[in-house]
Amino acid sequence: VSGWADVPAGSGFDVDRLPYGVAELGGRRRVVVRIGTAGLDLAAAAENGLFADVDAAILSGPSLDALLAAGPERWASIRARLRDLVTDRSVRDRLRGHPVDALRLVLPWTVGDYVDFYSSEHHAANVGRMFRPDAEPLLPNWKHLPIGYHGRAGTVVVSGTDVVRPCGQHKPADGEAPMYGPSARLDIEAEVGFIAGAPSTLGERLSTSDLRAHVFGVVLVNDWSARDIQAWEYVPLGPFLAKSFATSVSAWVTPLAALDAARVDGPAQDPPVLDYLSEAEPRGLDLTLEVRWNGTTVARPPYAPMYWSPGQQLAHLTVNGARLRTGDLYASGTVSGPERDQRGSFLELCWAGTEPVTLDDGATRTFLEDGDEVTIGATAPGLGGGRICLGEVTGRVLPARP
Amino acid sequence: VSGWADVPAGSGFDVDRLPYGVAELGGRRRVVVRIGTAGLDLAAAAENGLFADVDAAILSGPSLDALLAAGPERWASIRARLRDLVTDRSVRDRLRGHPVDALRLVLPWTVGDYVDFYSSEHHAANVGRMFRPDAEPLLPNWKHLPIGYHGRAGTVVVSGTDVVRPCGQHKPADGEAPMYGPSARLDIEAEVGFIAGAPSTLGERLSTSDLRAHVFGVVLVNDWSARDIQAWEYVPLGPFLAKSFATSVSAWVTPLAALDAARVDGPAQDPPVLDYLSEAEPRGLDLTLEVRWNGTTVARPPYAPMYWSPGQQLAHLTVNGARLRTGDLYASGTVSGPERDQRGSFLELCWAGTEPVTLDDGATRTFLEDGDEVTIGATAPGLGGGRICLGEVTGRVLPARP
Repeated sequence: VSGWADVPAGSGFDVDRLPYGVAELGGRRRVVVRIGTAGLDLAAAAENGLFADVDAAILSGPSLDALLAAGPERWASIRARLRDLVTDRSVRDRLRGHPVDALRLVLPWTVGDYVDFYSSEHHAANVGRMFRPDAEPLLPNWKHLPIGYHGRAGTVVVSGTDVVRPCGQHKPADGEAPMYGPSARLDIEAEVGFIAGAPSTLGERLSTSDLRAHVFGVVLVNDWSARDIQAWEYVPLGPFLAKSFATSVSAWVTPLAALDAARVDGPAQDPPVLDYLSEAEPRGLDLTLEVRWNGTTVARPPYAPMYWSPGQQLAHLTVNGARLRTGDLYASGTVSGPERDQRGSFLELCWAGTEPVTLDDGATRTFLEDGDEVTIGATAPGLGGGRICLGEVTGRVLPARP
Repeated sequence: VSGWADVPAGSGFDVDRLPYGVAELGGRRRVVVRIGTAGLDLAAAAENGLFADVDAAILSGPSLDALLAAGPERWASIRARLRDLVTDRSVRDRLRGHPVDALRLVLPWTVGDYVDFYSSEHHAANVGRMFRPDAEPLLPNWKHLPIGYHGRAGTVVVSGTDVVRPCGQHKPADGEAPMYGPSARLDIEAEVGFIAGAPSTLGERLSTSDLRAHVFGVVLVNDWSARDIQAWEYVPLGPFLAKSFATSVSAWVTPLAALDAARVDGPAQDPPVLDYLSEAEPRGLDLTLEVRWNGTTVARPPYAPMYWSPGQQLAHLTVNGARLRTGDLYASGTVSGPERDQRGSFLELCWAGTEPVTLDDGATRTFLEDGDEVTIGATAPGLGGGRICLGEVTGRVLPARP
């Protein structure tokens, strides 16, 4: 592969981004970094003496775990070194690039705990309007704390993994008793996920300003959701089997540092938040997501209006002394904007099944059918102008098992 | 240490039980098995040639993880070999025992996902009566499925670990806005936990009869709970920070096989459960828990009346295709019986703070005060008559950090 070091700024995958992944190369799992259409084998680069010894050890393992644990100073120095390497014509020949389309990418890190928040006001209000039409759309606690819950870490899967339609209990609105069978209301949630690198200790509280010190990077997340199972099971302890069958994440992890140019002010917060949730502006990120259903773009949810920021989510989830471990993942919750074509779930987009969408091939949809494929992408302002792409997360629905 | 091989049947720690733990011995973490008041160093026994090669490798690691992954046939053969070893006078001298009181026990396995169920009808009904006094105590879904949710695996701690009083948001009943501060309603939940050994694959559904093939053993669990934080945060996605600061587990893992004599019929289930939750009797376990508050026994919750069994919980949590990983932990939910002195949480025992208990030293309590210590133990019928003890789980409350 040649030419990957000349990727122009603003092309989406230039030196401003440099996301990390893990690929199976020659029967081994190797840390790779993406530049343009090439995946650079960092273990090979390290073997060629292009990194200092410590950095080489961090980059030569079978996953990103050692890099995550290395902490913010090492993240910055390795990133700076990578920028030098891929722009230095004198070392370029010593780097080994593989076409990204041919890479077999795997889940790049060991997921610790997985927390899912619920931080889009538009999403929470839409859900409230659908399920509690006679009440205030937002519950009384919603603007005081970032509502969240723990999901299943063991079923976080990498982009491209097929998702089997889940079975479970659901209770028809006109039924006396619940029924067992495949979910008939299979949905997506387009989210942004944050991967913890440096851990905290049990009893320690992190502040909103600790984000850069503890969060390594960002993935896109599809939090697949079975709405019929969820509606029946979720009282009083929250969603469980409706979510735990699969959560897909992008194979490429974008370093948080690559989003420095995407920092924007967050929306005003009224009522004022408690001290431990206060955060200096800019606390938001100007990402624009894109949801494609069988190739048709059905929504472009904006992340910037998210009510609760990743810094606030970090402070909240550790305010009780819960420790953060290397590899913990927390996701934003469904990203939905104020417009219909900005909704990040099909529940909202098709308003609980009452407003179908028409795809480019003429087919109509309300929830997912077997064989459907959903891809979520995102862009953000790049440091050198233009926009960078975040790694896509894609998945296809397989029929329920008999 | 001598005499540990002559522990009489029925003494609580005889050859019918043989629980596993992990201790720091000579600077290394070693798998140990308890017999009487001695912890037997299994790595040393393996080095002395007392196990077959494969078994030696499984037992010589720094945790129980390899044993958990080894699967039910290996669990049975190692357990049979251990019974032979500790009762065979000719090999006894070659075993190395350490007094259990001097052992520094650590969390013995790597916790995968942690699921907490809610399977005591008496507990769920008590909570319903306190919080929804004008409604049916049980919600409509409760008798159709074992309600559960994911907890935080990264804050599962071993018995003996101090628990710092958590801070967070709570909203006084007469207040307009939430306040921040230490929890004033810190509580316990006495539970029984089940540790998954053999994994399942993504998309696979386990049945209620798969319990012995997939669950290695049992720990006692204290699911510490901050009731004021919980009451404010839990709608609509369930408990989060109210639980995630700490969950204590016993250091000794009792093999499921040691509870064969504890099998009893479960309570009748009406309405009938869906097919995937049906289970041949006996599906219950005749354990009696004991909760000691600063040394005073305040409750003896019976496990036998639990509505949902561990087999049903296993089938439910995988019915959507969620995979089980080696090390996953699922807990029963608070074990409460019909009588006041059978309640496994202080919320119930002191009826939301309105009915204090008096401890042996004359002090009264409703919720936990700083410095309080809670110990949960349990006994079960042993295979050879008498009762076996399950490993206790204990913890002390430290003041909130400033």
